Amino acid sequence: MIRAAIVGASGYAGGEVLRLLLDHPEVEVVQVTSRRHLGEYVYQVHPNLRKRTSLKFSDPAGLEAVDVLFLALPHGEAQHQIDRLAGLATYIIDLSADFRLKRAEDYEHWYGAPHAAPHWLGRFVYGLPELHREDLRGAHYASGVGCNATAANLALWPLVRADLLDTSQPVVVEIKVGSSESGAEGNVGTHHPERSGVIRTFSPFGHRHTAEVIQEMGLEHVVLTMTAVDLVRGALATAHARVKAGVSQRDLWRAYRAVVNENPFLRLVKEQRGIYRVPEPKILAGSNYADLGFELDERTGHVVSMCALDNLMKGAAGSAVQCMNLMLGLDETLGLTFPGLHPI
Amino acid sequence: MIRAAIVGASGYAGGEVLRLLLDHPEVEVVQVTSRRHLGEYVYQVHPNLRKRTSLKFSDPAGLEAVDVLFLALPHGEAQHQIDRLAGLATYIIDLSADFRLKRAEDYEHWYGAPHAAPHWLGRFVYGLPELHREDLRGAHYASGVGCNATAANLALWPLVRADLLDTSQPVVVEIKVGSSESGAEGNVGTHHPERSGVIRTFSPFGHRHTAEVIQEMGLEHVVLTMTAVDLVRGALATAHARVKAGVSQRDLWRAYRAVVNENPFLRLVKEQRGIYRVPEPKILAGSNYADLGFELDERTGHVVSMCALDNLMKGAAGSAVQCMNLMLGLDETLGLTFPGLHPI
Amino acid sequence: MIRAAIVGASGYAGGEVLRLLLDHPEVEVVQVTSRRHLGEYVYQVHPNLRKRTSLKFSDPAGLEAVDVLFLALPHGEAQHQIDRLAGLATYIIDLSADFRLKRAEDYEHWYGAPHAAPHWLGRFVYGLPELHREDLRGAHYASGVGCNATAANLALWPLVRADLLDTSQPVVVEIKVGSSESGAEGNVGTHHPERSGVIRTFSPFGHRHTAEVIQEMGLEHVVLTMTAVDLVRGALATAHARVKAGVSQRDLWRAYRAVVNENPFLRLVKEQRGIYRVPEPKILAGSNYADLGFELDERTGHVVSMCALDNLMKGAAGSAVQCMNLMLGLDETLGLTFPGLHPI
Amino acid sequence: MIRAAIVGASGYAGGEVLRLLLDHPEVEVVQVTSRRHLGEYVYQVHPNLRKRTSLKFSDPAGLEAVDVLFLALPHGEAQHQIDRLAGLATYIIDLSADFRLKRAEDYEHWYGAPHAAPHWLGRFVYGLPELHREDLRGAHYASGVGCNATAANLALWPLVRADLLDTSQPVVVEIKVGSSESGAEGNVGTHHPERSGVIRTFSPFGHRHTAEVIQEMGLEHVVLTMTAVDLVRGALATAHARVKAGVSQRDLWRAYRAVVNENPFLRLVKEQRGIYRVPEPKILAGSNYADLGFELDERTGHVVSMCALDNLMKGAAGSAVQCMNLMLGLDETLGLTFPGLHPI
Repeated sequence: MIRAAIVGASGYAGGEVLRLLLDHPEVEVVQVTSRRHLGEYVYQVHPNLRKRTSLKFSDPAGLEAVDVLFLALPHGEAQHQIDRLAGLATYIIDLSADFRLKRAEDYEHWYGAPHAAPHWLGRFVYGLPELHREDLRGAHYASGVGCNATAANLALWPLVRADLLDTSQPVVVEIKVGSSESGAEGNVGTHHPERSGVIRTFSPFGHRHTAEVIQEMGLEHVVLTMTAVDLVRGALATAHARVKAGVSQRDLWRAYRAVVNENPFLRLVKEQRGIYRVPEPKILAGSNYADLGFELDERTGHVVSMCALDNLMKGAAGSAVQCMNLMLGLDETLGLTFPGLHPI
Repeated sequence: MIRAAIVGASGYAGGEVLRLLLDHPEVEVVQVTSRRHLGEYVYQVHPNLRKRTSLKFSDPAGLEAVDVLFLALPHGEAQHQIDRLAGLATYIIDLSADFRLKRAEDYEHWYGAPHAAPHWLGRFVYGLPELHREDLRGAHYASGVGCNATAANLALWPLVRADLLDTSQPVVVEIKVGSSESGAEGNVGTHHPERSGVIRTFSPFGHRHTAEVIQEMGLEHVVLTMTAVDLVRGALATAHARVKAGVSQRDLWRAYRAVVNENPFLRLVKEQRGIYRVPEPKILAGSNYADLGFELDERTGHVVSMCALDNLMKGAAGSAVQCMNLMLGLDETLGLTFPGLHPI
Repeated sequence: MIRAAIVGASGYAGGEVLRLLLDHPEVEVVQVTSRRHLGEYVYQVHPNLRKRTSLKFSDPAGLEAVDVLFLALPHGEAQHQIDRLAGLATYIIDLSADFRLKRAEDYEHWYGAPHAAPHWLGRFVYGLPELHREDLRGAHYASGVGCNATAANLALWPLVRADLLDTSQPVVVEIKVGSSESGAEGNVGTHHPERSGVIRTFSPFGHRHTAEVIQEMGLEHVVLTMTAVDLVRGALATAHARVKAGVSQRDLWRAYRAVVNENPFLRLVKEQRGIYRVPEPKILAGSNYADLGFELDERTGHVVSMCALDNLMKGAAGSAVQCMNLMLGLDETLGLTFPGLHPI
Repeated sequence: MIRAAIVGASGYAGGEVLRLLLDHPEVEVVQVTSRRHLGEYVYQVHPNLRKRTSLKFSDPAGLEAVDVLFLALPHGEAQHQIDRLAGLATYIIDLSADFRLKRAEDYEHWYGAPHAAPHWLGRFVYGLPELHREDLRGAHYASGVGCNATAANLALWPLVRADLLDTSQPVVVEIKVGSSESGAEGNVGTHHPERSGVIRTFSPFGHRHTAEVIQEMGLEHVVLTMTAVDLVRGALATAHARVKAGVSQRDLWRAYRAVVNENPFLRLVKEQRGIYRVPEPKILAGSNYADLGFELDERTGHVVSMCALDNLMKGAAGSAVQCMNLMLGLDETLGLTFPGLHPI
């Protein structure tokens, strides 16, 4: 069995990595750390895991050597510890934003502080298997992905990959998100009476995940607009762009089909009847699938491309475990087969 | 115009008193205080009141003399300031739990600390007009009411008033409540991802509001069981009791009709068709109405009596303003006519 | 007292007109019709109105003459009855889509059928007071407004009115809406287990309300994208556009302030602190206010303009009653002062 | 591989059986039927199953012989077809109410019509493994369970099994339920604007599932009170009863521990700290676990016992698959290990 540890396992993303690994046939979780919940049983924080594990949260200072280390620390912490941590594990997957951007100046621009370990940026593969599958096979270090960036990137990827976009035009990606994006620590804005029933465009411009879309899609002018809605898990990106002159519905079908055929966790949703005709995040809760859809106005070339996903799964823990599978040479889908629920 | 001030107006109950008084034809709000939001415009905290008032929150230490003073402080504070505050206003309505119980020993039993101003307990009228209308007319001091106690008391009142209950049997009142009961300050349990979608029986026994039901209904053995559900405003009390031998459906109809006929804000909901056949809190959001309903099993004498209300209105601010109307000799319903919304 | 009747009063918009008029100081509702709920008490359908009216739904065939007639029929019906109905009332306000568009060919294009009474189109004033206040004073016929169109139009209006937009660029308006937009009759997609928690982009293009935005804003290339989210009442329009070269933050502040100063029910929300920094629909439930906000990227000229409203109020019944006030020469705000609730 | 078919697989419970069997290591689903969705792909109705199965719904009239047949028909249908269906399969598990009650007169009393196949009642084992594990091993016919009955039965079982209840006193079980209990076909009361945010005590007395509690717990006087709340999946039963004189906290701990130790899918939740101190259904969505908890007032002997579960899983499809495992001699937990999600 492969031995794994999770640093910061009391958070939402860390908890999901733990849930996935507890049912993973090739991995054994030997240690989970949390400063805040030190000494508590895991199931006191993640009540779904009662009767599934008797692990307790331990002190991150006492971390022992393992094969794979998942880092689920608050943004900005892993970069200060990476040298020490790299001595403890052959493989590291860091779910924070610390090693997602390739260029130190981009990091400083978007995160407002110089990067503490810029020499490590080049060693990490950006952890979205749909974009970097071959690089991940055999890699030792993978970053996590921004959940919103992933929704935007997967919405745009079929168009970018097939070179269908008129890149002279701005791309607007409206992303609607659930409350688990705020993480396990609440704030005044996540107090239930204030957060319930909201439609709150909390970030019209400038969300940090924009950097990952620019980097990964190679686009210049991208606007990510974030709106909080009443849901716990889930994000929907609705991207507006213009296709090149002459691009037809048929071209789009071909582009989307190619992408979903190559990627086990991508699906195309474009139905003419029934309730579920377009991608929707709620049925993806707990699942690693991301659902894609599109609509084209052939007259104007305006394309609307959608991606629905579970921000804690494909947008965080699910992609991280998928990366682990690739890095270790395992079947990419191991431990990731939960399809989501209907109804929910 | 009657001049009013609200101490603790940044909280949910204080904010509702303010909303009601801003549209009250006989009252002018001259001061609202908040230590936490000192100097902010009221509408920065209560965004519904934008363009309705240019008041700012002031320091409670600088409170000036007024005709009516509403106290909406955290429990346990008003009793320490009551002597000073009584010098500033002719009429005081205190929404906290400090002056609800008649006996200092009851206060100490349920609140775990001796009362700081026990001599004041007898000067306050318990502020539920449906139970103490005549005492309130001309009174100078009225307590607030516990929201859950009010749901329970109004559910039981038609039965108690008509002396239909077999008081040798325990009364079980299951109360389901929305998240605004937690107040404006959040805690880990009200973080949206943890609070959304809950059915959480957080207090099987021993809720402090039980004391108000025992006191006001004169019952010995009452159990209040509190369950949090996914809603912001609203409480439903479902009371289980046994009626005296021989009590019939007809007796209950008579008892409930008498109560709703005497009280402008009580309504009986008992329909045979349609969606809304029983009392439901959601349509009461913002309204001072409380809806009552009942069902009797004549074979066993088991009666289920229901009361739905808005915990911030009939369960707090609405009853407080209704008390003020009575204390000042005004029409009891002034400023309280908003009927609630459908759908919502 | 002005005598009013409501045709189709069992629906959501008709029910809201009724709620507003029951508390209107100058109007008496003498008749409400519903074929489906014929003979039922109004409060059996609109349970909030229990104890507020003893009206029953009557047969629309037996409609009697009144001063003001509100039509809240399904789309496509009023145009077939308008000649008869015009004989019954001096003033008619039609909430359906039948008389919103000025040109019969536009109606046919967007609604897929020729208009049955095209000669009436020119007699109706488009019923959004913020755009047509002067025309409405003294008018006899006013259309309703599309709720989504209104959110889009009010989001764009400050920019259009001050001529700040680069109209060579497409305008994308992403609108997120609650479930009451579906009307009182459910369908498979509004069944709670399927509708709860959705983020469902049900109309990427081509929503019929687009016609009202094109007509009222005078823009050529507008895309309305509709996404259903988990809320009952409320819509938020987030509009993306480009401003003309050189337009600054200061220009936008001036443009928005001018609009909110001229219109009693528009408010500007642009705070630096607190929870409510941008417009949000939930606090507007039941209110006729519409809240506006904006954000400008001066580097690129990309502007995001937001409008939050209650689709049944400012987006339907509230604007209709506001029109009535203007048409009858009354104070524009009569009966429309409910500010919404916080929290909710 | 064991060959299985599901009749009525487009409903919620049938869809969940299908989801579970698609990941079951020993079972192959060869046929799923639906009259309403004949010819459609399964994933058009159950969108979570896209890319997981290419099955289409077929005509139930064309059902072929299989090893195991799951019946998920509307109540009242299976009893008319049981003779024919028994010829097609060695094992039958019927999720409807048709074969749950042992006595035909009880069926007629609670369901209002004589049973069409009373001779079959004795051949079915009541399908709750926690109560009938040994009978299920090797059985050929198992009934489903009522979801609410299961919540009530599991809440009461530790007390009944250890003979701790004072059975002279009535037992009141307040059950709060999500909307998926209404099934896949909506009605006026499940229209989202009417169902969202409800606290609706739709059945104070006389719910049909009461019959299963009386039968399985051997209690005489049981009241089930049903309240709908805003959640899709999940039920919480809060049972109120009196224990025998002298029964202590320690006796209850022993009784509950014994039950959870014997049953792989039962867990005891009774924490002193953290958010999740009592059983809660939301974290059980998709899971076959049922969580139990209790609180005792030693002074009065009043016990509150709680059971949380997913009504579609432990309350329907999960228990059905667990029965299948036992009937076929497989590991009881096969295919049922999904632990639920946190947060959700």
